[in-house]
Amino acid sequence: ICAMAWPMVDLRPVGYVIGLLVAALGVTMVLPFAVDLWAGNGEWPVFLESLILTTLIGGVLALACANSAQGGLTLQQTFLLTTGVWAVLPLFGAIPFVIGATEARAVDAIFEAMSGLTTTGSTVFSGLDQLPEGLLLWRSMLQWFGGVGIIVVAMVFLPELRVGGMQIFRSESFDTGGKVLPRAAQIATRISVIYLFLTAWCYVSYILVGMSSFDALNHALTTLATGGFSTHDASFGAFQGAAEYVATLFMIIASLPFVRYVQLLGGQTGPLWRDSQVRAFVMTLALIITLIVAYRMWSDNIGFAFALRESLFNVTSIMTGTGYASADYQVWGAFPVVVFFFIGLVGGCAGSTCCSIKVFRFQLLFASIRAQVQRLHSPHGVFAPRYEGSPVSEDVLSSVMAFFVMFIVSLGVLSVLLAMTGLDFVTAVSGAATALANIGPGLGDIIGPAGNFAALNDTAKWMLSAAMLIGRLELLAVYAILTVQFWRT
Amino acid sequence: ICAMAWPMVDLRPVGYVIGLLVAALGVTMVLPFAVDLWAGNGEWPVFLESLILTTLIGGVLALACANSAQGGLTLQQTFLLTTGVWAVLPLFGAIPFVIGATEARAVDAIFEAMSGLTTTGSTVFSGLDQLPEGLLLWRSMLQWFGGVGIIVVAMVFLPELRVGGMQIFRSESFDTGGKVLPRAAQIATRISVIYLFLTAWCYVSYILVGMSSFDALNHALTTLATGGFSTHDASFGAFQGAAEYVATLFMIIASLPFVRYVQLLGGQTGPLWRDSQVRAFVMTLALIITLIVAYRMWSDNIGFAFALRESLFNVTSIMTGTGYASADYQVWGAFPVVVFFFIGLVGGCAGSTCCSIKVFRFQLLFASIRAQVQRLHSPHGVFAPRYEGSPVSEDVLSSVMAFFVMFIVSLGVLSVLLAMTGLDFVTAVSGAATALANIGPGLGDIIGPAGNFAALNDTAKWMLSAAMLIGRLELLAVYAILTVQFWRT
Ligand SMILES: [K+]
Ligand SMILES: [K+]
Repeated sequence: ICAMAWPMVDLRPVGYVIGLLVAALGVTMVLPFAVDLWAGNGEWPVFLESLILTTLIGGVLALACANSAQGGLTLQQTFLLTTGVWAVLPLFGAIPFVIGATEARAVDAIFEAMSGLTTTGSTVFSGLDQLPEGLLLWRSMLQWFGGVGIIVVAMVFLPELRVGGMQIFRSESFDTGGKVLPRAAQIATRISVIYLFLTAWCYVSYILVGMSSFDALNHALTTLATGGFSTHDASFGAFQGAAEYVATLFMIIASLPFVRYVQLLGGQTGPLWRDSQVRAFVMTLALIITLIVAYRMWSDNIGFAFALRESLFNVTSIMTGTGYASADYQVWGAFPVVVFFFIGLVGGCAGSTCCSIKVFRFQLLFASIRAQVQRLHSPHGVFAPRYEGSPVSEDVLSSVMAFFVMFIVSLGVLSVLLAMTGLDFVTAVSGAATALANIGPGLGDIIGPAGNFAALNDTAKWMLSAAMLIGRLELLAVYAILTVQFWRT
Repeated sequence: ICAMAWPMVDLRPVGYVIGLLVAALGVTMVLPFAVDLWAGNGEWPVFLESLILTTLIGGVLALACANSAQGGLTLQQTFLLTTGVWAVLPLFGAIPFVIGATEARAVDAIFEAMSGLTTTGSTVFSGLDQLPEGLLLWRSMLQWFGGVGIIVVAMVFLPELRVGGMQIFRSESFDTGGKVLPRAAQIATRISVIYLFLTAWCYVSYILVGMSSFDALNHALTTLATGGFSTHDASFGAFQGAAEYVATLFMIIASLPFVRYVQLLGGQTGPLWRDSQVRAFVMTLALIITLIVAYRMWSDNIGFAFALRESLFNVTSIMTGTGYASADYQVWGAFPVVVFFFIGLVGGCAGSTCCSIKVFRFQLLFASIRAQVQRLHSPHGVFAPRYEGSPVSEDVLSSVMAFFVMFIVSLGVLSVLLAMTGLDFVTAVSGAATALANIGPGLGDIIGPAGNFAALNDTAKWMLSAAMLIGRLELLAVYAILTVQFWRT
């Protein structure tokens, strides 16, 4: 299959890695298979069939592309691999939704799998509480894989591709010297250990506050991925109380740069505490929570403890882009709704499982504006924007700027396209935002925290699926492939 | 009054110019005075009193500050003058609304005058058809003055202040060599002649298609200002038909760079036709109109001629930021509404009476992104973004970037603040956008094209008034004054 080579681009190394990943994804289906078997719900053939099909196709693809040159990946191949992984894996992740109890059509199954692997968490399924255990676990696993996958991409691939200003983390992520794949495998291993440990810790904590073992497992998987899939239609509304505090803690942990945890393991606590992105993120989050608590106490005359728990959980859930809801915050009034819309566009830290514009980009943009304002006053002075004490290169700044502009323009164009399919203003605009920023719920009656994406038309679902992919890969990693220049050189 | 000098900043030259402009504004009140006298509606004392008060205070201010140093303005003084003019003039422009038939409270009167002088066109008054002629004319005159004022600011002051990337038009606007005021006077004269001629031409055209002389005058004044104040609650709904085509033509004329008309007068037709900003603006407008016409014909099954006229007029009105409405386009469906929201954020050309982000900024940002993408593919190549064939300096690019980011961030923060005062999501977000971009109508039932701003709470009105001022002066001209550095040097 891989023998065909695009003009000048050898697709075999790309096909090889994607094939391996597809086969690996297939192998992991043994878990939901086992769960269904153990639960005795009679659904185990679904995952057995999916497992065989996925592993087989992935294996054949990898074998067909195996005898390709063993050198490093070219820049073009790296671009194609990054997008290719998130474009191809959802097709296989969707199989159980088609043949399983959800009996989903292709568009719904792919939407759900894409929402999983991009850690978005928007769902087209309702009646989650009645779904077989295997399918529920599969949804959570997709998010968990997507989460660890994106950390590796953010630490190894995006700095290499110099996309969205991620090259500012290049030195930090240990320069690959062009050898992306060995480096990726090495980092993936180290990150996976940390990710697994944090997930286990979250699982135990959920158990301790009274969740069932199955719920704890699923929510631990989707918390660390800032994914937001739940096993209940009521989302975290089913676990009001102590579990909300646990979830808040782990959503924040999942939103910090994972490279800091690698350093922490190496005994270095300094980098984490001194990280200006971490500080800015935590301070912004604290400020927003304070505002919402004050508003809730004043507006609805509710007690501090209740207001704090609800606000802490739901604000953190939206700002980190996790997308759980423990209450329909739309009934809190217009102020929280507008705040939730805009903090979802901020997001967490780079190098975490969070999506959206991210804190470091705002820091860099504001640093640039500050330098700009200084220049206004002293036209002949030289003011370079600084980040963490070092001057920021023009290359990084223009990358960040390009990301920001493309994010806003994509948001506008996608809103218009969604409205063209018949969605109302709030559904179109918030749907575009929640897909591009991989948050999960939108606003309004249809796709808001109390609703789901089932009722949307198919065209809108395809658009949103594409937007989740584009947003997850920091836009330009995907857009670059769509240019003529990409294929010419 | 002006004797007090801020630490290191001599405010007298600023006070002198503002005083003169206030006095001049007062003198122009003779026109609505004469109109009320001639109409025999008994309202003439309103403008006589306003005239005396305004001219007196302006004159005293100018005299008190007259014997200041006669050198050019410093950079600080130029900043303060720019913002000062738009902060002070509305206070005097508001007087007739307080003592006249509208009997407005200060907040409403200042909102209306600010909406006028910033050419926004949002109104807090209803029952326009019953207002005395003098007041209606005064609203239109405020927009007309604001329109010519902003062209001068855009051509002389902003390039000098290097705000929002306007310095790219520096050479074009004839470098002032630091002597801002003489240059401003000279350009103001030349621009005013063109502006007056175009207004007269528009007036005659409106008469020819059947408008009454008074309506034609008012709408000519507010069309050329891309202001959007009307003499009827129904706005242009009162003039459906040929007048819509006339208005469309002159709204487009008012959205092109006025420096091109100066060159046209000098016999140079080339610069206008070759201006890439003009081309991009006209092509975008044509594209959007085509889309909306097609949608309207398909969606509501209406004829081409009717769909064309309605779409042509209303799309042009929103994209140029004029803000007339000849129909409640909110009933056309979600697609036009979302389109209208986003094209309002594009706006017309720099150096015209249009506000918003403006076409040239999108051109520069896209040029930068294009260079960025080329660099992605060939990391060692050097790709400079180009505008009209010339490479764009880093200074201009970072200015434009700063403007874009501050615009979006201001939009977010203002939306949150407005929601905090109790406005719903659509009213808060569209109100923030329409004020910052000086468009006029918002979306939704309250401030949409069929409503007005009367029902908003006072806090929201003050916020929106400030936002109109900030948006009109390209954000950073105002924000720069609010920094500590500004007052220190
Ligand atoms: K999410
Ligand atoms: K306007």
